[in-house]
Amino acid sequence: MARVVRFHKFGGPDVLQIDDIPARAPGQNEIRLKVVAIGLNRAECLFREGKYLERPRELPSLIGYEASGVIDAIGEGVTGFEVGDKVSTIPSFPMSKYGVYGDYCIVPAISVSHFPDNLSFEQAASIWMQYLTAYGALIQYSRIMPGDYVLITAASSSVGYAAIELTKAKGATCIATTRAQDKKQRLLDAGAHHVIVTDEEDLVARVNDITKGHGADVILDPVAGPFIKKLAEAAASGGVIYEYGNLSLSDTPFPMFQALNKGLMVRGYSMFEVTSKPDRLERARNFVYNGLKSGALKPVIDRVFPLEQLADAHRYMESNVQHGKILVKV
Amino acid sequence: MARVVRFHKFGGPDVLQIDDIPARAPGQNEIRLKVVAIGLNRAECLFREGKYLERPRELPSLIGYEASGVIDAIGEGVTGFEVGDKVSTIPSFPMSKYGVYGDYCIVPAISVSHFPDNLSFEQAASIWMQYLTAYGALIQYSRIMPGDYVLITAASSSVGYAAIELTKAKGATCIATTRAQDKKQRLLDAGAHHVIVTDEEDLVARVNDITKGHGADVILDPVAGPFIKKLAEAAASGGVIYEYGNLSLSDTPFPMFQALNKGLMVRGYSMFEVTSKPDRLERARNFVYNGLKSGALKPVIDRVFPLEQLADAHRYMESNVQHGKILVKV
Repeated sequence: MARVVRFHKFGGPDVLQIDDIPARAPGQNEIRLKVVAIGLNRAECLFREGKYLERPRELPSLIGYEASGVIDAIGEGVTGFEVGDKVSTIPSFPMSKYGVYGDYCIVPAISVSHFPDNLSFEQAASIWMQYLTAYGALIQYSRIMPGDYVLITAASSSVGYAAIELTKAKGATCIATTRAQDKKQRLLDAGAHHVIVTDEEDLVARVNDITKGHGADVILDPVAGPFIKKLAEAAASGGVIYEYGNLSLSDTPFPMFQALNKGLMVRGYSMFEVTSKPDRLERARNFVYNGLKSGALKPVIDRVFPLEQLADAHRYMESNVQHGKILVKV
Repeated sequence: MARVVRFHKFGGPDVLQIDDIPARAPGQNEIRLKVVAIGLNRAECLFREGKYLERPRELPSLIGYEASGVIDAIGEGVTGFEVGDKVSTIPSFPMSKYGVYGDYCIVPAISVSHFPDNLSFEQAASIWMQYLTAYGALIQYSRIMPGDYVLITAASSSVGYAAIELTKAKGATCIATTRAQDKKQRLLDAGAHHVIVTDEEDLVARVNDITKGHGADVILDPVAGPFIKKLAEAAASGGVIYEYGNLSLSDTPFPMFQALNKGLMVRGYSMFEVTSKPDRLERARNFVYNGLKSGALKPVIDRVFPLEQLADAHRYMESNVQHGKILVKV
């Protein structure tokens, strides 16, 4: 039997429940993991509420994108992996079918990756969503380089911290935003060149000051909503705003005037643009793997909950007080 | 004395008036034209109302982007042109300072271009705004090629017809939209592969049908407003929507759900992105010049008004019944 987390109806954190169900054998091109750690993502909160890009067709539904663990069984047709390998999962599958919350999970072999030896299981469950999301926008598409100004909103999130690391790794200037003063120091410690506390400071004035009137070349934003107008004002001519989420849950206006004036681009973006193309994923995976191995990249971990407190872990994520990744240990 | 069109207050077509004022000599790097034909653009209607990207700081203001004529005087520092040359103007200057409506106009030498001998003065006043606008989006940025589906809204406008020609010249498939059934045949005659009459047909269903479910790769839209949601639905995965105007005068929502799902890009765009960079402009100018010379490109002219009826010509433009370019003959 496996202890698998499912939800039988859409709703708040309390709909998550641990069900004891028989552990099935992995099918063709599938791998089964004995899970050690699970990394949480906003995507799962939205998924649990039925508000995510993927909406399960039937309930109960599995849930969860990121786990690390040890390979326990291997299906037909899988190459490159052996039982006993330490691996973690790359979110490139439907959660309703392959969700990883639980003590065992089954995922497609293409969604499994080894991780460098210098990483703990907790760190290994904190890699792929955050680094691949930031990588696709900043490196694959925008090819950031020294001289570029990169504005990262909601910077205390796991993707935010990953984006700070990637921006610094590429030699660009990193401007992080957070709503709360008490998060500022941690962001500076993590390497942000500048931190703007948006509840207290004028974003546009500060960005103009920092960039000497140039504006932000690349903006990575998971919040969306009306604040996009300020982001557009803070953007450089020819700049791009990546919207990779809609945490505001508000309608988002297209900032027409600024866009026409500056040739601005507003782009919906998700990590699946990276993970759905094998060649892109391989390039991204190598970049991240090497960065982790060398120590240039190091996942920021906030807090670890036991599996039995998964609902609390979801509540904690939604409270927005975290710095970096929230984990569950099985 | 010169007969120069100016407006002394913002407003409807009637604010345009012909003022007799002394013709000044061209200054450094400026050229004076004896104007033969003037091409009208939506930009001038908006400018006249004080709603354009450029808003004159003081009134009365000059107005007008596109004129053809004969060089009448040359300022210091100008090379490559002689008095008597037949030329037309490239919109790359502030209208308040260099507006071309009138029987004489002064423009910067960098905004002046010779045109092929096979063009009339009317055709020569119908080149640069329309072809450079379409060129920048379709060719410079999107590099359209055979196999691409290009959706062109408000296709009966001068930019619309130019976009149809450029799309065909590059071997891509051209889907034109118009609101009115009676414009359909002219668009097909102009070379559109498909025409969707949006007042009568379901845009999304028709695009899906034409593209076999692929969607439109590139969308060129001057209308904006809420209809962008339909455009986003009709877009291909990884598609781009160029918003080069806001004819709807409505707020434009960012189509978040489709954008996240498809990795859509919505981009504010104006021809000034081409004309403000000398190397880009030169490449674009050569492309258009050669297309005009070979006959691959041929401006579609709707109607010619005398200068004295300029207000009527503006009213006619705002009525949206035209096909292609509206001209004024001096």
